[in-house]
Amino acid sequence: MDITRSPLARPFPHLPQIAGVTLRTARASYKDWDRCDLTFAELTDGTAVGGVFTKSACASSEVELGREQVILGSARALVVNAGNSNAFTGHRGREAVEQIMAQVAEGLRCQPSDVFVSSTGVIGVPLPKDKARAGVAAVLTAEPCNWEAAADAIATTDTFAKGAGASAMLGATRAELAGIIKGSGMIAPDMATMLGYIFTDATIAPAFLQEMLEAANRATFSCITVDGDTSTSDTVLAFATGKASNDLLSGWDDAGADAFYAALLEVCRELAQLVVRDGEGAQKFIAVSVSGAADDDSARRVGLSIANSPLVKTAIAGGDANWGRVVMAVGKAGEPADRDRLSIGFGGIWAARDGQPLADYDEAPVARHLEGQEITVEVDLGIGDGRATVWTCDLTHGYIAINADYRS
Amino acid sequence: MDITRSPLARPFPHLPQIAGVTLRTARASYKDWDRCDLTFAELTDGTAVGGVFTKSACASSEVELGREQVILGSARALVVNAGNSNAFTGHRGREAVEQIMAQVAEGLRCQPSDVFVSSTGVIGVPLPKDKARAGVAAVLTAEPCNWEAAADAIATTDTFAKGAGASAMLGATRAELAGIIKGSGMIAPDMATMLGYIFTDATIAPAFLQEMLEAANRATFSCITVDGDTSTSDTVLAFATGKASNDLLSGWDDAGADAFYAALLEVCRELAQLVVRDGEGAQKFIAVSVSGAADDDSARRVGLSIANSPLVKTAIAGGDANWGRVVMAVGKAGEPADRDRLSIGFGGIWAARDGQPLADYDEAPVARHLEGQEITVEVDLGIGDGRATVWTCDLTHGYIAINADYRS
Repeated sequence: MDITRSPLARPFPHLPQIAGVTLRTARASYKDWDRCDLTFAELTDGTAVGGVFTKSACASSEVELGREQVILGSARALVVNAGNSNAFTGHRGREAVEQIMAQVAEGLRCQPSDVFVSSTGVIGVPLPKDKARAGVAAVLTAEPCNWEAAADAIATTDTFAKGAGASAMLGATRAELAGIIKGSGMIAPDMATMLGYIFTDATIAPAFLQEMLEAANRATFSCITVDGDTSTSDTVLAFATGKASNDLLSGWDDAGADAFYAALLEVCRELAQLVVRDGEGAQKFIAVSVSGAADDDSARRVGLSIANSPLVKTAIAGGDANWGRVVMAVGKAGEPADRDRLSIGFGGIWAARDGQPLADYDEAPVARHLEGQEITVEVDLGIGDGRATVWTCDLTHGYIAINADYRS
Repeated sequence: MDITRSPLARPFPHLPQIAGVTLRTARASYKDWDRCDLTFAELTDGTAVGGVFTKSACASSEVELGREQVILGSARALVVNAGNSNAFTGHRGREAVEQIMAQVAEGLRCQPSDVFVSSTGVIGVPLPKDKARAGVAAVLTAEPCNWEAAADAIATTDTFAKGAGASAMLGATRAELAGIIKGSGMIAPDMATMLGYIFTDATIAPAFLQEMLEAANRATFSCITVDGDTSTSDTVLAFATGKASNDLLSGWDDAGADAFYAALLEVCRELAQLVVRDGEGAQKFIAVSVSGAADDDSARRVGLSIANSPLVKTAIAGGDANWGRVVMAVGKAGEPADRDRLSIGFGGIWAARDGQPLADYDEAPVARHLEGQEITVEVDLGIGDGRATVWTCDLTHGYIAINADYRS
């Protein structure tokens, strides 16, 4: 398959070094390709971890184990396999994960439960243990690499490497954050074959790191969709090495907690949006802002109903200000709405207000907006104070070409 | 837009005359086209009615009024406007519907509430009252027409006329059923409008007709999807004229009730499947059968999650037996499932059983099945006795071309 770089791609940013994190990659050759496909992050002793995972009822062994490991709160290593998701592979798949955990634990002299494993790629093929064993052995002694190399090595059908960084002042101490992510299809996070990893040198209690990550996830990764399909492997992990030596953050009232959360949110939002920018076949990046909903969760669900509607997504692909399709998507969301209070706009220009098209609606500026690459859709439900923004991409021939021509 | 006849189309069947039903069509010229676009069914005095409607929170005035009228249980006429859905048009839209009801009621000397109105087409443009008035005046005196002419006149961008019939022995009395339908989830590119009408000469109490229609709807119209988008106007009405003079059917224990329900179910299933066969861009008709679910409703929701998945639909379009995408769609359904009991097959051949791919799985016969036009997907959840079958079509470049190239 010839994959060209998404027209919505962003250059890989400069990301800070995170003290206590060492990245390495190796070739496990999970597929017949000439690239690194095993990524390893060694984490200093005492690193705290938080994680959010797919809600799929058919989650992979990696996800099942990860959910248990996160509760323990500590991490020493991350291993990411690309090219094979190891999902739907029964006990053989689980054994392969446990083998990797044991092998890394032996190398680092840590507990197997401190070794987090993710896998992404084809479903239904057990991860080959021999390739994993040789790959892990190689990666443990490989030279350290930079963020972009790691972002490349976790990717599968992505068309560009994705990363984001931020910093936060925790009192007088500056903490750095860096994150990488992969994903472009099967994206509707309850989480998607979206694998994201965020690293920071801040000192944070695991329970509070988990709490902040869950909050950030609700506002970012859970607000994106490419195709409404949810993968069996979605995972976002946050690791805090504590090397910044700030006073421990253990709750929202601690000095610096708000600053750190703001930085975490910024990284998560950028990573989430980068996944949308690499949505399969995407030609336009679409932000759907919903206001006036019963509450914020309701606003998010209405936004996702719009963002998942094939009719809305194809209309925008065609540059068509078809607000009737937005009405349809609001109506089908199953959330409180009142047809006669509903207002809909594009690019900040209302097309319909209070349940009727505007008498003096001028489509020309809206049509110009829809010719661009960065589209906004505004919806006001007029019944409450709930609001949310969700992000998606348009639905194009490229999506069909990628997914109807792809053979597993 | 050049719409060619769906490759999955069926010839229009021979349908019985239904005593007490007279069909007529006229040209209201709701759009600039050379065809009949106003359909009228006159129903004999005493006709019972049942109806099911879209659950959209932004339903049209036709739907709002229809929901109230059905509760009264009696009908004398049906009017269907094609080319303008009259949805999202506020009080002006409602006035247009009330005008039609009053005009027909005057002509037939009945109550306005006995006149059912449906409209399908573009959203956001109030139905023009002058055209409606002239059209209704013309149709009231037009020559009677046959089922196929009526099926053509209610259509918008459908590529073929759709009808189905059946009969049932109610004791010694033979009752006839005939139905017509338009749309497919998205064959009218502006919205997902499905309008269906079923007529019978049986004598049935309105409440029982309603009960049977709701039951049939759950197993048929609620089991189809083209793209998961739900219209603001979806309507299915059932009219029973009583001309067959059978003993009144008023409950499931009445003689003939089971026979009538079986015939109603047959007509509803055929009409529902015809809509899928006209799905935008459809090249393949797909039946997804789910068994072993917690209950029947859960099975239906799992089936719809599979049938709505763009990744599953594009895989089938590409002839790819990608059962991993089916696993994904089961997992995201939000229904009880156990990965390690899940089995998946195509064309009656299991590809995976109990959470793992079959060791001796031979893809060749499955690949041959997927080359055909009539595809089956089998899913067994292995946790209960619930079962359901849902119907959909594949997702192709044709869908994108129709919906991204169309301008409202």
